[in-house]
Order: sequence, then C-alpha cells, then structure tokens
Amino acid sequence: MAESSRILIKGGKVVNEDCSVISDVYIENGKIVEVGPNLQISAGVRVINATDKLVIPGGIDTHTHMELAFMGTKAVDDFHIGTKVKKEMETLAKEKGVNSFKMFMAYKDVFMLQDSELYAAFAHCKEIGAIAQVHAENGDLIAEGAKKMLSMGIRGPEGHELCRPEEVEAEATQRAITIAHAVNCPLYVVHVMSKSAAKVVADSRRDGRVVFGEPIAAGLGTDGSHYWHKDWAHAAGFVMGPPLRPDPSTPAYLMDLLANDDLSVTGTDNCTFSVCQKALGKDDFTKIPNGVNGVEDRMSVIWERGVHSGKMDENRFVAITSSTAAKIFNFYPQKGRIGKNSDADVVVWDPNLTRRISAKTHHQAVDYNIFEGMECHGVPIVTISRGKVVYEDGQLHISPGQGRFIHRGPFSDFVYKRIRQRDQVDRPAAVIRKPYEGKVISV
Amino acid sequence: MAESSRILIKGGKVVNEDCSVISDVYIENGKIVEVGPNLQISAGVRVINATDKLVIPGGIDTHTHMELAFMGTKAVDDFHIGTKVKKEMETLAKEKGVNSFKMFMAYKDVFMLQDSELYAAFAHCKEIGAIAQVHAENGDLIAEGAKKMLSMGIRGPEGHELCRPEEVEAEATQRAITIAHAVNCPLYVVHVMSKSAAKVVADSRRDGRVVFGEPIAAGLGTDGSHYWHKDWAHAAGFVMGPPLRPDPSTPAYLMDLLANDDLSVTGTDNCTFSVCQKALGKDDFTKIPNGVNGVEDRMSVIWERGVHSGKMDENRFVAITSSTAAKIFNFYPQKGRIGKNSDADVVVWDPNLTRRISAKTHHQAVDYNIFEGMECHGVPIVTISRGKVVYEDGQLHISPGQGRFIHRGPFSDFVYKRIRQRDQVDRPAAVIRKPYEGKVISV
Amino acid sequence: MAESSRILIKGGKVVNEDCSVISDVYIENGKIVEVGPNLQISAGVRVINATDKLVIPGGIDTHTHMELAFMGTKAVDDFHIGTKVKKEMETLAKEKGVNSFKMFMAYKDVFMLQDSELYAAFAHCKEIGAIAQVHAENGDLIAEGAKKMLSMGIRGPEGHELCRPEEVEAEATQRAITIAHAVNCPLYVVHVMSKSAAKVVADSRRDGRVVFGEPIAAGLGTDGSHYWHKDWAHAAGFVMGPPLRPDPSTPAYLMDLLANDDLSVTGTDNCTFSVCQKALGKDDFTKIPNGVNGVEDRMSVIWERGVHSGKMDENRFVAITSSTAAKIFNFYPQKGRIGKNSDADVVVWDPNLTRRISAKTHHQAVDYNIFEGMECHGVPIVTISRGKVVYEDGQLHISPGQGRFIHRGPFSDFVYKRIRQRDQVDRPAAVIRKPYEGKVISV
Amino acid sequence: MAESSRILIKGGKVVNEDCSVISDVYIENGKIVEVGPNLQISAGVRVINATDKLVIPGGIDTHTHMELAFMGTKAVDDFHIGTKVKKEMETLAKEKGVNSFKMFMAYKDVFMLQDSELYAAFAHCKEIGAIAQVHAENGDLIAEGAKKMLSMGIRGPEGHELCRPEEVEAEATQRAITIAHAVNCPLYVVHVMSKSAAKVVADSRRDGRVVFGEPIAAGLGTDGSHYWHKDWAHAAGFVMGPPLRPDPSTPAYLMDLLANDDLSVTGTDNCTFSVCQKALGKDDFTKIPNGVNGVEDRMSVIWERGVHSGKMDENRFVAITSSTAAKIFNFYPQKGRIGKNSDADVVVWDPNLTRRISAKTHHQAVDYNIFEGMECHGVPIVTISRGKVVYEDGQLHISPGQGRFIHRGPFSDFVYKRIRQRDQVDRPAAVIRKPYEGKVISV
Repeated sequence: MAESSRILIKGGKVVNEDCSVISDVYIENGKIVEVGPNLQISAGVRVINATDKLVIPGGIDTHTHMELAFMGTKAVDDFHIGTKVKKEMETLAKEKGVNSFKMFMAYKDVFMLQDSELYAAFAHCKEIGAIAQVHAENGDLIAEGAKKMLSMGIRGPEGHELCRPEEVEAEATQRAITIAHAVNCPLYVVHVMSKSAAKVVADSRRDGRVVFGEPIAAGLGTDGSHYWHKDWAHAAGFVMGPPLRPDPSTPAYLMDLLANDDLSVTGTDNCTFSVCQKALGKDDFTKIPNGVNGVEDRMSVIWERGVHSGKMDENRFVAITSSTAAKIFNFYPQKGRIGKNSDADVVVWDPNLTRRISAKTHHQAVDYNIFEGMECHGVPIVTISRGKVVYEDGQLHISPGQGRFIHRGPFSDFVYKRIRQRDQVDRPAAVIRKPYEGKVISV
Repeated sequence: MAESSRILIKGGKVVNEDCSVISDVYIENGKIVEVGPNLQISAGVRVINATDKLVIPGGIDTHTHMELAFMGTKAVDDFHIGTKVKKEMETLAKEKGVNSFKMFMAYKDVFMLQDSELYAAFAHCKEIGAIAQVHAENGDLIAEGAKKMLSMGIRGPEGHELCRPEEVEAEATQRAITIAHAVNCPLYVVHVMSKSAAKVVADSRRDGRVVFGEPIAAGLGTDGSHYWHKDWAHAAGFVMGPPLRPDPSTPAYLMDLLANDDLSVTGTDNCTFSVCQKALGKDDFTKIPNGVNGVEDRMSVIWERGVHSGKMDENRFVAITSSTAAKIFNFYPQKGRIGKNSDADVVVWDPNLTRRISAKTHHQAVDYNIFEGMECHGVPIVTISRGKVVYEDGQLHISPGQGRFIHRGPFSDFVYKRIRQRDQVDRPAAVIRKPYEGKVISV
Repeated sequence: MAESSRILIKGGKVVNEDCSVISDVYIENGKIVEVGPNLQISAGVRVINATDKLVIPGGIDTHTHMELAFMGTKAVDDFHIGTKVKKEMETLAKEKGVNSFKMFMAYKDVFMLQDSELYAAFAHCKEIGAIAQVHAENGDLIAEGAKKMLSMGIRGPEGHELCRPEEVEAEATQRAITIAHAVNCPLYVVHVMSKSAAKVVADSRRDGRVVFGEPIAAGLGTDGSHYWHKDWAHAAGFVMGPPLRPDPSTPAYLMDLLANDDLSVTGTDNCTFSVCQKALGKDDFTKIPNGVNGVEDRMSVIWERGVHSGKMDENRFVAITSSTAAKIFNFYPQKGRIGKNSDADVVVWDPNLTRRISAKTHHQAVDYNIFEGMECHGVPIVTISRGKVVYEDGQLHISPGQGRFIHRGPFSDFVYKRIRQRDQVDRPAAVIRKPYEGKVISV
Repeated sequence: MAESSRILIKGGKVVNEDCSVISDVYIENGKIVEVGPNLQISAGVRVINATDKLVIPGGIDTHTHMELAFMGTKAVDDFHIGTKVKKEMETLAKEKGVNSFKMFMAYKDVFMLQDSELYAAFAHCKEIGAIAQVHAENGDLIAEGAKKMLSMGIRGPEGHELCRPEEVEAEATQRAITIAHAVNCPLYVVHVMSKSAAKVVADSRRDGRVVFGEPIAAGLGTDGSHYWHKDWAHAAGFVMGPPLRPDPSTPAYLMDLLANDDLSVTGTDNCTFSVCQKALGKDDFTKIPNGVNGVEDRMSVIWERGVHSGKMDENRFVAITSSTAAKIFNFYPQKGRIGKNSDADVVVWDPNLTRRISAKTHHQAVDYNIFEGMECHGVPIVTISRGKVVYEDGQLHISPGQGRFIHRGPFSDFVYKRIRQRDQVDRPAAVIRKPYEGKVISV
C-alpha cells in the first residue's frame, strides 16, 4: 500500500541511545532512508506530525513467549537446552540464524541442568558464538522448599515465593556466572527478579565478567507483596518464576541498576494465563501456571518508573528497550537505531500524555493486568513496524503471521569482541622448571 | 592548503561508541561531509588509505594543563573557584562558553573550600547549568599528615603518598558526592586515583547519583610503588596530587570500572616539570612540584591496558577517550563521533603496530616519562584536527596557537536531563496536620 | 540494712558473655562473693529464688543523660569538647576518672568542630588514653537542609528527618573514622541510627579500624515513619538527632550488626521531654527539643528484637548491654560480669514473662512512650545494684543521689592494646637514598 | 608422677578471651583448682615461674589430620559423609560423642555431594544437633579446570591453583551457606583460603546466618605465589586443597576478618607429606598429595601475624586459637578457658622471645616447612596438657597414644541456641483465604 510504504515523520525529536536531535525521518520500503532537518515532502508520502513528540526506535522485547510482540520487534526465541542437543545447536546457529540458547538451573527433573552439563553447554555456545542464556534458580532448593511449604500447610500463592526466596536466585546467578567464566563464555541472565541476584550481576560486571542481566517489566513495575493478597485470583495472577519479591524496594533498586548499566536490557517474559487457567493451582501453588502479562505495557511502565522518575534519561530508555538488545543479538544498527539504512521500526511517543493501565482497556486476551491502575506518563501515538503503521489512534493494525523472524549471525561483536581478545592474551603459561630428579614414594 | 581541506579516508573501520563499520570518511573544510561505503574520489582530494586500520574520533583530554593537546581536542579549562566568584562564574558560563568549574577540597589555606562553601559553589553551578568538578582530598588531613611525616624524618617522595593515603581521597570523594546530592547537583570527580575512591564513585552511581569519575592515564598505566624507588629523580617524577597508589592492583581495578561505566572518562591532568624543577623538593617532598606527563601517551596506554588486555572493546575505548567527554561538556555530536556534520577530528589507528614509550622518543620537552619502557599495541598513524593533518609519519605538524577554545553551552543534556526531571518529581511534601493546640513549655 | 547486704540468688541460670551455667550467686557488702552450684545458706541471708530465671549482669547504659539509670549502672558522662579544653581534659582524665569525651560534628555554630579541630581532639584523647566519642552528622548540611525545608514550607516533624537524611550521618561517620585513623586513635560512634552509617562502621572494623558503634534502643525498636504521623504530638515525640530513619528495615539491620559484633554496645541517649516541652517547635521543627525516652525499656526492647527474634543468644545480649561497655570504659570485670569479686549489679530476668510497654505504666515522668504498645518477652523480676535490691515486684526502691560515679582509668586494654602495638610496629620508614646532586630550577 | 600432678604457675598474666589478669594458677590431677593472686605453695608442688609471661589456654586445633596435636588439644575428627550414613551419623553423635561431620563439595566422583545430598545431610545434622562442616569448592569446575590445564601443557604445581581459582571456592561457599540456610542449619566452613570466600562468610554472618569460617595457619602465614617457584619440590610442598592464593594481600585480609570475628576459629588442616611423597605428582599436579604442615607452628604464626602486627590483642588470640572452638564443639569451659574446674591445658607463652621457623629445628618428620625462615615473636615456654608438662626447654615429653578423644554432646548452645529460637518464631503462616470458586481450565 502506497501510503504505508513512504512515510515522513516531521518535526519530532529523534531519540537514539547517544543523543536526541530535532529531525525529520523519511521512510521508504521498510527502511529509513533519511534522517535530517527539514526534509522535503514529495507527493504520495504520508506525513506524520511529530512536533513535541519523541521519535524512538521500536522496542525490542528480549524475552517474550508470544508470537508477535506489540510494540516493535521480537528478538529472541528460547531454544531450551534440555539434554544433548549439541549437534542441533550448531545447525540452528549456522543455518537458521538462531544465536541464543536458554539453559535452566530450575525445574528439577524437567529442564534442570547439572553444573557439569551447564559447563558443557556454555562451552558449546562459545564455540558456535551463541548467547548462553540462563534461568538462574537453584532447582534442588525449590523442590525441597515446595515440599516444606506444602508440609506446613501453605498451599496458596504466597507459598510460591516462600519456597524460593531470593537467595535461591542469587546463589544460582553466582554459580552460573562462575561456570561461564571458567569457560570464558559470555552469559545472559534472563528475568533478574531480586535485589540480591541483581547485585551479583552488577558486581560481576564490575569484576570484568561479560554478563548481561535482564530485568522484566513485572519486576520493574510491581512487587511480590501481591502473593499475600486476600483474593486468591489476584495473588495467583502474579505467579511467575523466579517470583516477584516481597521487598517493596526491589523495583526501584532494579531500575537504578538498569539506569546505571549494571543491568543491560529489559524483557517481559510475557506468558499470560487467564484466571481460570491459573486456577489449576487453586489448592496447590506448585500447580499454578507460571506467567504474567507485560509485553503491551512494558514501554509505559519502564518510562514511568525509569524516565518520569528521573532515574534515567530518554536516551538510556532507548538503550535498554531497544539498542542494547539489538547489539547483543547481533542486528544493530539494522534494529535499535533511527538512522539511515536502519529498519523502519519506529514509535512516535508522547511523553506528556498519561494513561491508566487496566485490563478493561488493554489489547490482550487475559482478564487481569498485574499493573492494574498504574498511571503512566508516556504514551505511544503511532507505531511503525518495518515501514508499516501497525498501531495508531489506539487501534492495532496487525494480522496474524505479520511477525518475522530475523536471521542473526553468531559472534556478535558487542558480546564476543572482548571474549576473543581475552582468549588470545590470557593464556596461563607453564613455569619452566628442570625435571624433579629425586626419589618418589607412594603415599 | 588544498590537500588538507579535502580528505578521503578510505577503507578503514570506522569506530564509534555504538558500533564499528567498514566505511570511507570524506572531509571538507574541517567537517565530516560523508560517511559511507565506496565514496567516490574527485580530483584534488587527498586520499589516506586506512585499510586494516581503525578510524576513530580524536581523543578529548578532559583534564590537561597544556595549551594544546597532542592527539585531538582539548576539552576543559579549569576555572578554580577560590572564594566568591559567583558573579564571574555566571559571566563565564553565559558569555564565554565555559561550562565547568573546578573546586578544591585539598590545598589548605590556598584553594581549599569548606563544606559550606562547596555547598554554595555546587548550588551555583547547578543554577547556571555548569559542571561542578572537584579535586577530592581532605586538605586538613594532608596538612597534618605532611607535618607528621616530616617530623618522623621522612622527607623523600615516599612521604608524598604516606601523608595522604587513599582513604584521604575516598573520604573527600564521599563527602563531595554527599554535598552535591544535597543540592541535587551533578558532580565530576577529577583524577580518581585509588581503588577506594573509585569504589565510592561506582557505588554512588549505582545508588542513582549523577556523578562522573575521571581516572587519568598515569593512574591507569602505572602505580605508586615508584615513590619508593632508590633514585630520587625517578621517584620525584611520579609526584602528583592525589598521588599514585602503591597497591599494584590499582590500575587494573580502575580500568575494570572504566570498562564497566562505573568510571566515565579519561584525562591526563598533564602538567610536566623537568627533573631540575622537581628538585625544588629534593629535601622536602612537600616542595616537589606536582605533575606528571601523560597527554601524548594517553591513547596508547589506555588502548594497551584497556583494549589489548580484553577489558573493553574498541567502541568503549572511543567512549572513554572521546564521546562521553563530548557529551558531558556539551559538544556532542559535533565532537566525539565520526558522523556526517561532525568536526573532522579523526585518528587513523593501527591496532596491530606496537611501540615502546620512552623519553628518548617522545614529543614532550620533559626529560623523563613515567611510562618509560612500556610496550604498547595500538599506534596512531595519522591525526587530523578540524580537517588538517597535524600528525603523520611520526611528525607533528602543528604551530603554537593552533588549539581553539570551543564555546560550550550550559545545561548539557547528558548531565542535566535527569537532574531537572528529579527537581520536578522529587519534592518532599509537608504532612497536612491540624495545628497543635496544647500548652507550650520552655525547656 | 542486713537483708540487703547478704543475698543468695538460688537456682538461676547465670548468664555471662561467654556462657551460661546453672549456679547460685552469693552477695555480700555490695560484692559478689561466690558463684557456684549449691551454695549453703547461712542465717540472715536473704534468698531470692531464681529457678527457671536468668541471672544477668546489670545493664550498663553507655549513653544516657539522666542522673540514675533504671536498671543497673550508668556508665558514661559526656564531656562535650566545645573548643580548647585541652588542659581540662587532662585533669578530668587523670584526676577525676573521666575517660571519655564527646565531640560533635553537628550543631553548627554551637558545638560543631571542624576537621582540623577533630584531628587535634582525637590526638589529645589518644595522648591521655581517653575514649573519643563522636556525634557524627554533617552540621553544614543539616543547617542548609533545614533552611531548604523551611523555605519549601515544611515545618512539621517530618522536616527534621528530611533535612538530615541518612547519608548526612554516613558521610560524617566515614569522615570521623578517617580522621581518627590518621591519628591512630580509637573511636566510639554514639547513636548509630541508619543502615548506611552502621555499614560504614562495620566495614571499617573489617578493615581493622578500632571503632565501636553504639545503636540505641530507639533505633533498634522503632523507626522514623512516625515523623509522618498525622498527630503532631505523636510525631514530635520521636524527634532526636540523628533522627530515626523512615526505612522500616533499619531496626532489624542494626540488630543483625549488633548480633554480629559489627556494632558493639547499646545505649539509649535517654533525654526526655514532655509534649508541652516538645511543643516549643510546633511551628518549626528546628525548635523541637531533641530527645526520646528509652532507658527504662532498653533491656526489654533489645531482648524482644534481639533474643526473642533469634538474632542473638542470651550471652551476646549480656555482651551488648553490659560486658562490652564495661571493657570499653575500663571497669571490667568489676562491672559487666557475674563472677567472684565483681560488683553485685545483678538482674533476675524472666525470659518467659511478657509485658506491654506503655506510658500509662512506665516509671518515667514523660507523658508518652515511643515504644507504646510493644509486646515484650523478657521481664526483669529483681534488680540489684551494688548489693541492694533497687527494683522488685514492679516497684522501684531508689532514692535520689543513689547513683554513684565510677572512677575509670585511662588506656583501657580493650580499646588501646592494639593501638599501642600498632604504634610500635607500623612506623613508615624513610627510603635511604644518596642526596640528589643535580641542578635545581625554580618553577 | 607427683611433679606433674600438682603444679603452681606463679606470677604470670592469665589471658582469657574476655580479659587478662596477673594471677597464679594451681593445677591438681589434670584440673585447674584455683586461679587467683598470691596462691600459697604447699610441699610437693612443682612451681613454674611465669613472671612477665602469659598463661594461656592450650590451643585447640579445629582441623588436623594427625593423631596428636602439638600444643594442646585435638578437637575435631572428620567423619566424611560419603553417601548415606544417616543411621551411622546418629550412632556416632548419640553414643560416641562425635558432634561434627564433614561434607565435601569437591573431589568429584569420590566424596563430592550433590546439592540435594547436601540438603539432606545438613537436615540430618540439624536433627541430631551436630556441626555440619563443609569443604567448599565446586568439584565439577575443578575437574574441568584440571583437564583444561593439562591440555594446555601445564603440569606443574602452578596448575593446581590455576585449575581451581578462588571464585571456585567462593561459589561453593555461597552455595553451601544458601543450602544450610534453607534448612536453618548452622554451618562450619573448613579451611577458608581466599579473600572472596572469606567475604562470603563475613557477609553471610552480617545477614544473620549462623556460619563459622575457619582459616588455617598456612593461609594466614603464607600465600600461593610459591606455586610459581622455580624449584618443583618447593612449589609442591605448598599444594593443598583449596590452594593457597597468589594474591599476596590474602593473609592480611584473612587475619583482619579473624580479628573482627568475621572468621571464627583457626585450624591447620595439618597433613604432611615428604618431598618424595609429593613427587608422585612430579609430572602431573593432580597427583601431588594434598597437604601442608602447620600444627606445630600455628600458634607462633598467628601470634606473629595477628598479635604482634597489632591486628588483634592477646584475648582475641585466645578466642580464635582455643575458646571459640571449645564453644562450637561443646566442651567450653572445660576446655578453652583458664578458670576453676577447667581442664589443665595451659601454655606459658613468652611474647618477647623470638624464634625462626625452620625444617631444621621443627619437631615434625617432614623435610620442609612452608613457613621456612619466618621470624616469630611469641614462643611457648612450657606446655601443659591435662595437668602434665608435655613440652619444656624445647623438648617434647609425649608418648604415642597420649592424645585422648573428648566426648562431645550434641546441640552446642553456642551454635544451636539461636537456631532453635528461630525455628520457634520464624514460621511462615499461610494466608487465610476463602476458597476459589471459579472455573478451572487446563492449560
């Protein structure tokens, strides 16, 4: 359609991760063709007035389980490494353009890998240049904790958090980083949910580890006190793994670290279940399906708690919602930047509008929203995906199957450049000694 | 001169802080006119072959006391805030394009400000949108420490460090940050020299403080064990304030923090004195002129210890030597980026060449070099400053007065955007109470 | 009186800081004469049955402003070091048995000392073997903060905390420790009120500093959220300096550090004002008299939050309420231990009884209680002071003037033994060099 | 023998963990009968003049693999928990007086327990009131690390440390503490060898964990730089697991934590092999028998580096070498204190004498000494074990089999009092909700 293939966004403030500039953006055939002041309008070009608005790169949700993300591009597919997939991993990476794999330290007897298996999987990821992702919780302790809670008569959603307190997450995070470092493999920690786990990531980065921590919208926008809510359905709606934490200072702490690049990118781990589905666990918290919403509200929640609060500026917002993910998953600057030749994934954002999040108005099928009632400054006005307007005037204009998988090469520079250099320069050398000539006695 | 006004750098890898791309760079009249693949050569254009080389933005030395920095652009002038200069500060900021001021917590009875004076100076910097810089050492403790060392018969350069150990620096750093936060004023800590002071900066950033720490080449490339050198002249050559630290793990620690954006930018605090000048303090370390070299070797030392070591990649190198300084001091992307319309400050860098630093070969007048003998990977081949080749074939082509002061506006977005937002949203509200009606008794 | 001069406490569990043993305790003429199993009763001895009770050393309140402490012994008198009292300090220490002096970093223009004055005072304390105590808050920042709050229209008790947030305390604590270390002088930080200040003390101890932190009952038992109470009189009742902190996790954090010997002793800083006295500041929080109650409830509050909670055992309770103070202030084991020849300051303590704290039932004149309504396990049954029963059956049996000042010698071993050893072994030595013979040029 | 059954130690300074007092000590039949000034001498009593000497409790080596410890009492036997010993553990604890068990996280395929096995073992220890001890290193990472080093051609003793760097120890320490906390079981970490592992223990204690860290003489007195020694036999002599660390600041750091009660007790892990025995691993570091000397020199090394350095006083020295171990292993004050009715394990210690440690003069069979050449202040003059002089005038007076196992009861108060209290008060309660009545849908 002509109107969607040529678009001129006029007069907005173009926000990239490094700076913001008042500029026009001209789009043709799914690509950004020009960025600059006072671009001329030719006939047949649709003009979007962005005066007093921000023009930002489409958000990249690093971590969702949906087919199509709402506001931009879907970045990551999880390929769970169950047992030996070594050959298959190689095929996926080389031929299919999958460059990240997710390993579980939780879910004992299902997905959980032992340390030696993690070591092997990390080693293989590194060999093929993939991003090793890890769900970091100690599965043994969760299994024991769940037994203990049930034996004490705790069967409601609060048991979900009580059986896996944050040190269970922090321990596994520390262990995963230690194992990855033994291999000199970069590591991506999905859904960092607690202060202590986040601190482990941050301290490790400070020590020079190549590790990326991903908090999610849920963890940045709400907390685990909801598990103690008197209404079972309300409480169950927040069940996910790792759980939200009851410490109410958690979201602000995670946001501070995200602002400071101690944490790197944001996802949603979006995976929604209706109340009736959650109710499978009505008598036993271990049976509640794990998952929360988030993908639709991610940008607003992070803007509200991150930018409106003054913790970060609009440029860092672009970095954590888009650019850094594009770098990690190796399609920057094709994605993640508003610049000449980049894909035309663009959001026109009004930082002055406010909206109230509610299940009554959201675009998702699920019948509750974990951010219910949150007032958010910062509202998307128009969303353009690969040159087409997919959201406008509060309406989605997408059809099933519109999402497209992006082929990603291995050995992302952002992730692997330091790793390769270290492999070259950090080789321990044997001490040169003359051989020991003395007697040898068996102990 | 024609050959210098139109230059095409061909086939290099253009390195900006966000990514690296093989690209040509075309320069005309001191500006970068085009960046892209396979740019066409017209007649009269000088072509520089950069195949297998990196093309990086000219380094910005955030902190030097020379008239012209060697490799790129001089960013910062210190305007020491002695006592009340309040009016003058405003004039400098508004009319002269000076947007940073340096305050001293050291040098008692000379420059040292009391806490209440710092508070006032920070408040004023914030009002006019300037960058408050601070030399953070506890001047009272230095004065007492120096007396103590002299009384113990310690008169050599080792006394310089012994009288002001790193906790004297860390304490003042913590205090400066606390005072700045009380004003909600951003802070720039010059020459962060010790692990403990750097940790204070890093922890404060993690807590959300808008603070920037600047390690210098000397601190990243050598250490304070030299103060104990048997040769007085050697030891005296390293005397600067704050001193280099005897803990040999200091440089690697500072570099780790710099790689991780816990520290932000690098300077040199270049201020050189010959051995004969240093000898003023031959019988009393307090009389040794403070200052070390660094400006010429800064890029090589940081590349060697930062990039060649695998601690950071080439993009982060550009950030810490150029882009971030340009953002802080408010001339990004005019400076600090190789992009269309930016100033043509460019270095062609060969990451595969090595050179050995030595006073015998350096371009400075001073007769020693604190990095003497260091083998550095990474050598500049050509340096272009505002479109002119100023260094080539190992020769400088500059004349006195060629440096140019850059007018900088106040309220740099990079520094002040969050500050202003916080001022709007973080206002403590009075509790609304009905008035107390009871009896009042004098204590 | 005969009955009070010979007392046998039978069948209790004697709790000292190192262990607990079922034992009788025989008291004569104000001294403990024997501790052992099955002591024989002679005629005329009053027997107190302590079966199933604990027999603990009388609490030593390290920090109170009353004439007589309720439950045991008053340890410390503050001798505020206003300006130059150097000679007087020496007299007090040598002739009057005063071995501790308190310096203020707060109360600008009244008590506040500059860093150089603190340095001199600490140096003098060390010379005479006294304990340097410090009220650690940055007085300049408080003064500025108070002005700012008033200018914003915040005049109620919440302004008291807002003008001096915890980093104002932490900064001064760090500074005091740094200055004391420069002198190699031990330091005692009174009323540690915040997590960040407590962490400074704890980290410093870990680094080998001889520093003792004293949290007080108020800080261990309640928090600063009360300053936001709608009832002015309620809020004003909690005003003290440094203030209680609004972070509700503060008391548990302080107790954890106290349990772990990161903090050392407990006091109350007891200084009570009635509501009508507090009302002097009804229109301006800076005029509210500073002080809270605590001395009467200290033991119960600490037992409840420390021992009943499982954070510490009964032996550590004795250490922090009695023994360690006796060691620091140099009258251990005369005080602080139940042992042969020690002073007969003994409390019979029932760990199974509970009581509810209330202004309606307390023994203090003041008309409110900051611990109002707190349920405490652990109740004193009988209190013996220097061989006399001063509390029994819920009744005090004391008369004014009964408190007695205890002469304390300087150079307490517990505090000074390490200090003196360090002075001997930690002397920096000058590097031996041949003199510099070259030319000297003036800069 | 009469002379050994009645001994009067005259005029010494009796040092207990709480204070030091000039006092005589009278010993009869293996017990201390009296401690006090000016005890009278009856006929037939051997008098030892201790004027200007210290009289300290015999050291308790918490961790040795010898039959008889040199200077005092042997405290601990390791009962390695290989697989299921559950029943046997109970028998040992209840009937044999063994109250500690050691679990391994290292030694894969031999002793190493999985997390779920650790959980079970800790749970069982807690049930029977035993001390759970753990050798904390990640066995999987060691196995992989060793393979890697050998594959790189590193076969000498330096490979021993390179294959198991300190983060391998720190990770396991963190994990063990997390697992123990999940069970609410106290934990004893044997041979804490690195700064990072020690920090894990210290931070955990600050968070309220009941965990005890035990550094050993080797780790406090020397470091792992010796693994890089050019002489193979020298380097091999230092091989133990976990290894000594190459960071030269490690010993002082461990001593600081020990001084500050962040670490609790000291052992030696004494287990000596001759050079000829070590030579089993002459071509492969993994075959070098693990073990170093230490038991004979432990007290001197710790005195030198701890007390003489000024890091701790003589009382803390007694705590870490004797009293605290006695408390943990539940025979205090029978052992670990010089007091009436305690066992007569006494050392007369001259703090002013010095000696030089050497394999030439030591009393051990092994032909090298890892502390070779160390000058130590602090020398034992006389050692009395259960009332008998076993060392005097530089000569040992012991015969094989003289060591005696001490029956120790379970549930040591020092270790378990807080644990039991927490079990009572820290029970999470289920939220009371009305049942969910809605529809349930399978996912």
